[in-house]
Parts: sequence; structure tokens; C-alpha cells
Amino acid sequence: MYQDATLQEINEALNLAWNAFQVYRKLPLKQRADFMRTIAKELEELGDEVLQKAHEETHLPEARLRNERARTIFQINNYGDACERGDWLEARIDTAIPKRNPPKPDLRKMLVPLGPVVVFGAANFPFAYSTAGGDTACAFAAGCPVIVKAHPGHAGTSEMVATAILKAARICNMPDGIFAHIHGAGNEVGEALVKHPFAKAVGFTGSLLGGKQLFDWGNQRKDPIPVFAEMSSINPVFLFPEKLKHSAVEVAKLYADSITLGVGQFCTNPGLIIGIDNNDLQTFIDSLGDEVKKVPPGEMLHTGIFKNYVERRANALSQDEVETVAASEVEPLFNQGTPTLASATAQAFINNPILHQEVFGPYSIVIRCKGMDEMLEVAKHVEGQLTSTLMATENDVRNHSELVDVVRNICGRFILNGVPTGVEVCLSMQHGGPFPATTDSRFTSVGADGIKRFARPICYQNWPDELLPNELKNKNPLKIWRTVNDELRKD
Amino acid sequence: MYQDATLQEINEALNLAWNAFQVYRKLPLKQRADFMRTIAKELEELGDEVLQKAHEETHLPEARLRNERARTIFQINNYGDACERGDWLEARIDTAIPKRNPPKPDLRKMLVPLGPVVVFGAANFPFAYSTAGGDTACAFAAGCPVIVKAHPGHAGTSEMVATAILKAARICNMPDGIFAHIHGAGNEVGEALVKHPFAKAVGFTGSLLGGKQLFDWGNQRKDPIPVFAEMSSINPVFLFPEKLKHSAVEVAKLYADSITLGVGQFCTNPGLIIGIDNNDLQTFIDSLGDEVKKVPPGEMLHTGIFKNYVERRANALSQDEVETVAASEVEPLFNQGTPTLASATAQAFINNPILHQEVFGPYSIVIRCKGMDEMLEVAKHVEGQLTSTLMATENDVRNHSELVDVVRNICGRFILNGVPTGVEVCLSMQHGGPFPATTDSRFTSVGADGIKRFARPICYQNWPDELLPNELKNKNPLKIWRTVNDELRKD
Repeated sequence: MYQDATLQEINEALNLAWNAFQVYRKLPLKQRADFMRTIAKELEELGDEVLQKAHEETHLPEARLRNERARTIFQINNYGDACERGDWLEARIDTAIPKRNPPKPDLRKMLVPLGPVVVFGAANFPFAYSTAGGDTACAFAAGCPVIVKAHPGHAGTSEMVATAILKAARICNMPDGIFAHIHGAGNEVGEALVKHPFAKAVGFTGSLLGGKQLFDWGNQRKDPIPVFAEMSSINPVFLFPEKLKHSAVEVAKLYADSITLGVGQFCTNPGLIIGIDNNDLQTFIDSLGDEVKKVPPGEMLHTGIFKNYVERRANALSQDEVETVAASEVEPLFNQGTPTLASATAQAFINNPILHQEVFGPYSIVIRCKGMDEMLEVAKHVEGQLTSTLMATENDVRNHSELVDVVRNICGRFILNGVPTGVEVCLSMQHGGPFPATTDSRFTSVGADGIKRFARPICYQNWPDELLPNELKNKNPLKIWRTVNDELRKD
Repeated sequence: MYQDATLQEINEALNLAWNAFQVYRKLPLKQRADFMRTIAKELEELGDEVLQKAHEETHLPEARLRNERARTIFQINNYGDACERGDWLEARIDTAIPKRNPPKPDLRKMLVPLGPVVVFGAANFPFAYSTAGGDTACAFAAGCPVIVKAHPGHAGTSEMVATAILKAARICNMPDGIFAHIHGAGNEVGEALVKHPFAKAVGFTGSLLGGKQLFDWGNQRKDPIPVFAEMSSINPVFLFPEKLKHSAVEVAKLYADSITLGVGQFCTNPGLIIGIDNNDLQTFIDSLGDEVKKVPPGEMLHTGIFKNYVERRANALSQDEVETVAASEVEPLFNQGTPTLASATAQAFINNPILHQEVFGPYSIVIRCKGMDEMLEVAKHVEGQLTSTLMATENDVRNHSELVDVVRNICGRFILNGVPTGVEVCLSMQHGGPFPATTDSRFTSVGADGIKRFARPICYQNWPDELLPNELKNKNPLKIWRTVNDELRKD
């Protein structure tokens, strides 16, 4: 339906973005924030029409899409506010000591934008992690132009959102090239974008295969660039004995919802549940199985994801020592994902890498351990994750500190007695984690700290006050927090 | 003289480091800082003997080595203080809103250590960027054990410094494996270290070839790890017309010192000087040439660096349109680097990548531009740098804002009317820059912000106060700066 961009179009977009960068990076923080707020308004202005289009393309329910757009608008405004507040600039000033031998020069540091950022839209969040999503908002806040490659699964929605961004750019007199929207169903467009000399960073949310490919392209450049890819996570949940003894049924109900929410199409879907093989766990498995059976299959985002789910689910269920505990009692139609619960022994999990792979959809596997020692063994075999969850009493936590430490060390977000689905947009959120959850655990893709993915520090040495950027001038005209001679202050 | 470590020894060191990590990462910030201060003390305790050894191995003058050790001690103490102050933790708290629909959970984030860090000692700083240098200090501050691969050019010095660190570790009851010291003259040891599953980050200062190799190894792992390599920089200096009109001779004197300081063996050595081809530039070149002639050749760090200097210098001087302006009048002995000044046209520079390469030693080339437009063209062809310098009046800066912007965008530290040599150790320092200056321009290897290279954020969701780390408890027992509901506070 949409034509893949040609190499010439890509080149034009990047050249324009590079020119826009020279202007945009010098605009005051407030102007960047106002631009972002205008995007948020224009997104609202798209009305129900864009929800309708998104529903047609992704099969997500309208209510969910309405919420997701609201969240996207909140996100843009939140990062815009953070941009203007300026804490993220990490402004530091060390004043000169001319009498020292040798004299100490005046040194002032702040973050500056990297340059044009290429953003790849996510299949599962047509608004919040796509065209005007978190990566785009972070890049604009940092001072970077953005080139979005639309996700082919919702290219029409993406086109409408792009129109809103371009309208906001016109209203705010942004330079030509501040934003570009490109289609590309194959790999060629992505490769050309990531390898273009004027692309200076990449944001991506999607599969391990896709993200790792972009990461490799970014590193294979003559000048490697940072590629932040949020990729693969099975979000382990550890069921501790005391907790399970008291609330096996409640935990099962909670998790039935979390596993099947949105047909399981969340990067924080709990795909791995680890417990001690005893009567309490059996009660949990039985209850969870009963709940899962009751949930009807739901239509998935697109046929690629559906086929992938069918294949990976079948493959996981066919492994030695894996049994199917429960599946939805309703027969699925084409493109529908069937809620499924499996189980396996700890040894099966430890020895079989296939059971570590994400099965993207409403699927989870319960791992039965012989005791806490084996649960620790399992934890040591789990790769990097966006989240880990403990279902545990305070006693459980205190009595098993080694296990708690191991579980914490594999994740970006560490949840106690909750579910991993549901990602708050706030400064304290960490949406990232050790590989393969992301390509760089030192950054987040949710929350205003995500701005820092697209910025780098620059130090001004020996500049007179009047030639310094406002962020670093003596009088602190922007009233931002700065560390002056090792002390944080705002005056 | 020293045996290369065997694969078994490397494996043992990393296994021990991994075990030490489980203990060390949980120690209070104060205990980490005390350990670092004890290292600083033990470094002092090594007395003149280690200076003598370093002099024998590197041929650096004793006074310089004494200063460098003092700087190293200052650095360790400074990062130790920063570790304890805790600003680097980026603690953020968003409190729960139970009444919201859906309820907002309590979320608290802080940086935690990545794991064992492999540090490669630098040839040119036997103390400040080697065994107990900036990378090691940053890693310890972050909460990471360290495995140092000694630089073969000063392996004996490294051995002595390692002894001091191990003694400090014993005094402070640090876990076994908190620090390991490994020798390896060939590539095999480095490769085994970077590819070991328990290595979680790498710090390196050295050549482009070496740093890029480590970066590639780090990225080729099953789980890629961050490799921060500080590599190659020719530190361009732009001579603006009004400035040069008034002070060509003074600027020349200043730069003669900077180019030949320490036989030019600094990563911030000004290897590229760009001016407008007029009488003022001729005066500058003549004066600089006269000064360079007077500086005698100096003994270089080791024969590898010497041979490399001889080859690269000869290669640069033999390029079309490059002329030798001046060389030291004193005949060099074996292993001595000859101070050298060359010059070339802007077109020669633009068209010949060899003139962009670092000639590590007391060498610099002046590029003659036909006018400011051509100077801008040259600037656009300069790759990423640790530093860029403008020698310019305020008028010069104001009149050539496009050029100023381009020059700023290629560097990590942006100097006005000074020399790039001399790197302050303070929070506002940025020692890093776009590739090939480093592998990741978003981090610094000098100043306490360098700690962040080896740490990642983790978010605690829904944890009761008594189970949270002290850094995130409600009462803020450590009195660190934290962003609470978007507001920085310390109470």
C-alpha cells in the first residue's frame, strides 16, 4: 500500500535532518518543549479517525487505543516538561582557580544532542512506541531531528500521526527536516537509514532478531553509533514458598490477567513463572490453568506475529519434559492467539535454551523446582530481562537473600508482589535491562531519563560568560539545577 | 620478563571477580570510598621506588612521574568522595498513588554496578590511566571488581601498583577477587578477558587499532558488553584572523610548548592547526618553527611507540603538498622523538585521509586555508575529537558562528584561547568525544561522571521501605540528592 522509500529519498531526508539539526539544537529548551506540546495537541486533534485506522490495522480494541493515545500525549508533555526543567542536562560548573600552579581554568559541562535519530516504530504500540512515541519524544527533547521508519503493520496510522507532527512543526516554525516519515517493508530501508553518515543514533522496539541486526549495522559503520534496541524479555516471576502457601489462588488470578492482557502482546508479559514443586504450586497451577481456559483467543496485531506465535508456541510445547497445562477452551479463528499455560521441570529449563526464548503472545510456562537451591540454579540460567518479579512475603525476601540478589542482577525493573505488565511513564521508571532485553542496560526507553540516550556531554573550557550557552552562564538565567564546584544548586 | 596469563588463570581471575562482585556491590558507599582512600595511601607508601621503576620502564622524567602519581592519588580520593556523596546514583523516587485508576505503584530507581570490569593500562600514563588509574577508580566507585591487564611497557610499575591495591584490599577486608592483575603481551590475553562471560564492561586508553579491536570483541559476544575505549584524537586548533593579527607570536610560543610537552605523548596533543593563509599565519608558522627547532628530541615511552612515530611522521611528511616547516636541530638518538612541524594546503588535507591520522608524538601540521569558507570546509572534514580549540577574539567567535558550531560538534571539550594538553580532574571535565576519539561519546573517562560507564539503573517497584536499599529509603539515611516526584531534594 505504501511505497518503500528509495535510497535517494532516504538520503534527502537525512540531509535535510542534518541541516535542521544545526538550527534545532540551538533553540532554547522552552521552544523545544513548546514544539512537543504542540505535537501532543495535534495528536489529540486527530480525533477518533486515527483510533479507527489503528483498530483496522492492529485489531487492538478501541478502548485500549484511546488509552494508549492518552498515554502517548502524557508522555510527550512529560518529556517536554523535563526538557524545559533541564535536570537532564547534567550541568556542571567548576570555576577557575587562577592562582593555583598551574592555574585551573574555568570548566563547564552540559549535555548536547547527538544529531539526527532514526526511530523504528513498534508493532505492538502504534502510538506510545511508534511515530510520536517515546523514542521520538526523547530525541526531540534532546535536540535531535527524527526520521521515523513506519512499522508496516500500522503504516496508515503512522502516516496520520506523522501528519500531526509535521503540522506542529509548521505551527512552531521548526526548520525543514526536523521530522521525516519513511516507509519500508524490507530490510534495505532500515539498513540504509542506520548506515547513513548523518544518522547519529537509533531507537528501536521489537524482536531480538531485528534489534540485534540494527545494533550490528550501527557498530559496523566507519563511525559506530549508539543503537538502543529494546528487544526480548520473558519477565520471570519467582513464587516464594511462604507467599504461595497463603495466596496461591489470588496470585493465579492476578497472573491469568497479566499473561492474557492484550493477547499477551507486551514486552513485559510474564512468560516464565518459577516455583517450588509442592501442593501450593499445584494449587497455583490448577487455578491459573482454570483461568487461562476461560480466556478466549484474541486477534493478534498482524499475521506475522500470529504465525510467529503459532510456531514458537508449538515448538515450546513439543520440547521434552514440557507439558501443556491448559489452553483456552474456545477454538481460535485465523490470526487469533490462544491463551496457553505450559509447565516443565527445572532441569528441562536449565538444559534447553528453547525454553528461554520469548513466545510473544498469551503464553507462559511454569518451572517446577525441587527446592530453593534448584530455584537459585534456574535464576542463574536466566538471561537479561526488562523485569523480574518476586511474589514473596518479607520473610521470604529476608530468608533467601542470595536468590533475591541473583534475580535483581538480571533485570532493569524489580517488582515485589505485582505484575510486570503496566509500565508507568515517570522519571523513576527503568524500561531496559541487560542483553538480550536491550542492547545497553545503562539506558531506559521509558521516562525522561530516556532523553540521555540521544545526548552527550560537552565541556567548555575558558569561555567568557557572555559567549556561554544560557544553561551555563554565571547567573543561571534558566534556573536549572547545576553542580557548581561539586555542590548541587539552583541559584 | 612477565609471563602471559594462561586461559586458566584468566578464568580463575574472572570467577573470583564474579564472586567478589556479589559481596562488593552490596557494601555501603562509605566502605567503597574508604577502600579507595586506602589504595591512595598505599600508592603514596610505595615511595620513590615505584617512581624509579616507572622512569626505567617509560623514560618519563621523575618530576613528571611524581606529579602523575600525585594526580592519580587525587583522582582516587576525588572519585571516592563522589562515590560517597552519591549524586552519581541518579536516585529517583515516584511515590505511589493508590487512588488513581489504575493505582500507581511506588517506583524508586538508582544506579547499580554492571559487574567485573576489565581495564587495559595505557602506555603513556603509567599511573593515572593504568593499574590504579581513572578506569579502575571509577569501577571501584561504581561497585565493580577490576581485572587489570598491565601494559607491557611498564609491567614492573604495574606490578608494584597492583601490590598496593591488593594490600589496601586486605586492610579493608575486601572480598577475594576484588582486584586481579594480569600480564599479556599478545592479543590472546586481551581477547580472552573481553570475551569472558563474567566480564561486564571494559575500559581502555590507547590506539585506534587496539581500542576498535576491543570494541568489536565486546560487541561480538553472545551478550554484547560496553567497551569504553579512548583512542585517537588530533585535537584541532583553529586560528581566527583577529586573534592571530594581534598575537601570532605569543600563540606560537604557547603551542610550541603544548606540541612538544612530554615528547608529544598525550592524547590531547594538538596535532592539527588550521589558519588563514596570510602574513599573520606566516608569522605564526615562522615563530612556531623557530621554537620547535630549539626543542631537543626526547626519549619516547617504548620502542613500539618510537617506531610508530618514525613511520607515521615519515609517511605524513612524504604526502603530496606537505612540507616540513621545521624539525629539532638536535640529531635524535635511538628511541628519541624529533619535534616536527609540517604544513599543507586545505585541499591537501581535505583530499588525503592520511593527514587526518594521529601521529602520536611531538608532531603537528598547520593547514593553510584560502579564507574562512575553506576553513569551514576543513572543519567539516575533521572526524570526532577529544578536544577542539579556538584561538579567537570575542569578535571572531561572534562573526563566525557557523564555523564555531561545526567545530563544537566534533569534540568533547571545547577550548577557547588555551591549549588542549592538561586535563583537569573534576566533575565538569569531559574526556571523551565522537568516534574515533572514543567508542561512545556519551561518557567520559576523566572526572567522577566516568563512574557511570560502569553502572546501570534498576527500578524497585512496590517494595516496602525496610527492604529497600538505604539509598532509596523514605528517610534518606545517607542524605544523598534524590529526585522525588520530579523535584531534586536532599531531606
